[in-house]
Amino acid sequence: MEDRKVIITIGRQFGSGGRVIGHKLAERLGIAYYDKELITLASKESGICGEFFEKADEKTSNSLLKAFTMGFSLNSTIFQNNDYLSNESLFQIQSDVIRKVAAEKSCILVGRCADYILRDNKDCLSVFISASLEDRIRRAMEYNDKLKASDAEEFLRKADKSRASYYNYYTDKTWGAADSYDLCINSSYLGIDKTIDYILSFLQARG
Amino acid sequence: MEDRKVIITIGRQFGSGGRVIGHKLAERLGIAYYDKELITLASKESGICGEFFEKADEKTSNSLLKAFTMGFSLNSTIFQNNDYLSNESLFQIQSDVIRKVAAEKSCILVGRCADYILRDNKDCLSVFISASLEDRIRRAMEYNDKLKASDAEEFLRKADKSRASYYNYYTDKTWGAADSYDLCINSSYLGIDKTIDYILSFLQARG
Repeated sequence: MEDRKVIITIGRQFGSGGRVIGHKLAERLGIAYYDKELITLASKESGICGEFFEKADEKTSNSLLKAFTMGFSLNSTIFQNNDYLSNESLFQIQSDVIRKVAAEKSCILVGRCADYILRDNKDCLSVFISASLEDRIRRAMEYNDKLKASDAEEFLRKADKSRASYYNYYTDKTWGAADSYDLCINSSYLGIDKTIDYILSFLQARG
Repeated sequence: MEDRKVIITIGRQFGSGGRVIGHKLAERLGIAYYDKELITLASKESGICGEFFEKADEKTSNSLLKAFTMGFSLNSTIFQNNDYLSNESLFQIQSDVIRKVAAEKSCILVGRCADYILRDNKDCLSVFISASLEDRIRRAMEYNDKLKASDAEEFLRKADKSRASYYNYYTDKTWGAADSYDLCINSSYLGIDKTIDYILSFLQARG
């Protein structure tokens, strides 16, 4: 691993522990971690306010349009350059940021089609994390203490549907399909910590 | 692993090397391997001739009906018991054989919805193997020297579609979806031998 960059992209079911796994992997490897941080970077690069990226984050056209009509503040850069008003442009800006970051240094990138954007990067390992429904419901309720147990399954279904729509719209692959990734792990099988160890051993195996 | 049985089910894209991986895993672990062998067992258990199971192997109703109308010999047991004429019954017989084998001993089971049939078996690890299109085309052409390179991609698509139809019909999961399995690996990333090592290390990690 000495001379090779470590770029790990993580796709994840909602409540699968994918974000925690990504974060801890970055800590263990001593490398950068990007999740929501990509929004700040994309905002800096483009001059478009972060709130705009945030509302559009991992959402497709319709959702973005909805966010639009509901109204939120846009900074002057957008009004000066109408190209930026399409979500395809926002995706493009974010993609450029992802490529730039991955070219510069080893890092963990969570979500946002990073596996597809970096498909030609030989250093990249794409991982997808799933988990048992039971564990996912427990985590979703920990994240959001207003979520009732009776609504949790439907909430998870919708959250994943939204991620899948975004991914399937911008890539030629299928979100959550085994053949879209190099490695997919059910984090409920080994638990979070052993799953992290196991992903690290994949990096060792590739050499 | 001393006191725990090792049951590994392997789902696989056509040409992914899943069969070879299963076979070598069984050799490395010194345990039984079942692929087409399940047909012989199901035939012995039921008294229905193997040819019948073979024609229906990993195919759904329509395909089976087609095999039927094309005509092939059925032994007398079938005519004595018309229940056996539905493919659901054939699936049931094969499922009973899979459960029986898994209750008796450590083994590798390839295809035939074994992961779903053994979903409540705590010893079971379900694996799905994918591979790059390039590797899959190469293997498909090695298996069948009459297959032209120009037809290979379409051949693979149909072969996987047939496996998916069978799996999706008999289970409440989706064939090839990451969350249907404990572990999914793209065998092109590490190569066949290192992929086998890596699956073995998952067993060690679970303890």
